[in-house]
Amino acid sequence: MQHTRLAAMPCPIARSLDRVGEWWSILILRDAFSGMTRFEEFRDSLGIAPNMLTRRLKALVEAGLLERRRYSERPPRDEYRLTDRGRDFRPVLLAMLAFGNRHLAPEGASVHIVDAKTGKPADPVLVDRLTGRPLVSPEFKLAPGPAA
Amino acid sequence: MQHTRLAAMPCPIARSLDRVGEWWSILILRDAFSGMTRFEEFRDSLGIAPNMLTRRLKALVEAGLLERRRYSERPPRDEYRLTDRGRDFRPVLLAMLAFGNRHLAPEGASVHIVDAKTGKPADPVLVDRLTGRPLVSPEFKLAPGPAA
Repeated sequence: MQHTRLAAMPCPIARSLDRVGEWWSILILRDAFSGMTRFEEFRDSLGIAPNMLTRRLKALVEAGLLERRRYSERPPRDEYRLTDRGRDFRPVLLAMLAFGNRHLAPEGASVHIVDAKTGKPADPVLVDRLTGRPLVSPEFKLAPGPAA
Repeated sequence: MQHTRLAAMPCPIARSLDRVGEWWSILILRDAFSGMTRFEEFRDSLGIAPNMLTRRLKALVEAGLLERRRYSERPPRDEYRLTDRGRDFRPVLLAMLAFGNRHLAPEGASVHIVDAKTGKPADPVLVDRLTGRPLVSPEFKLAPGPAA
């Protein structure tokens, strides 16, 4: 019922939460970004009950963020790979990572984003693609869109 | 129990989820960014049960994202305002908004981010603050940090 109500809201944040807004789902996506594809990998990484993992993977496939592919017929085995839509969720995870590192890691960052070539840490900031200006308040604000 | 387990993970994404990772909390923050401060405003916006709203507001205050301030003594009335930490959560919401608009709004965006002066829509992208380079794969990756 909660799901239905959130999905009915036109707000795109509410819709994203409706499709992906469950802890396990977000942590499964995190692991998918780090290269995991198999049920056992997710299970071992998350310490999640198998029936719960099955449910969350199914929901992510139905929401179009993961796709399921059979990689072995005997025995039958599936793997889960990020779709283009799933990969587009990456900025949400990176923004959460930056928030967690800044505010919830008093001992220092245990994971951070680095330049793959140089290993130098990046400092994530959300900007407007065209102008490069940081999307901060009060310079930018939320407003009704064309479909409002 | 789920909370404890997630909080124990060193991953900053897991920690953010532990503190803020509940639908209602994220939607309360969204409404706080849009200027709401009072219990009744959040309740009317979200259609949330009062006891649930009380719990979520308390958790956000305890997590340091909102602060509670008394604005009237008779009758006693409190308001809830974003702290600096709470304001730092904005990029997560904006990244969710961009994802929702791109993938979950077939009828077009009902809310978007615009330049406050010109009203022109912005196209949010996460970049490295220093170099301005988009934080995409494989140019950037996650790596263990100093506290790993």
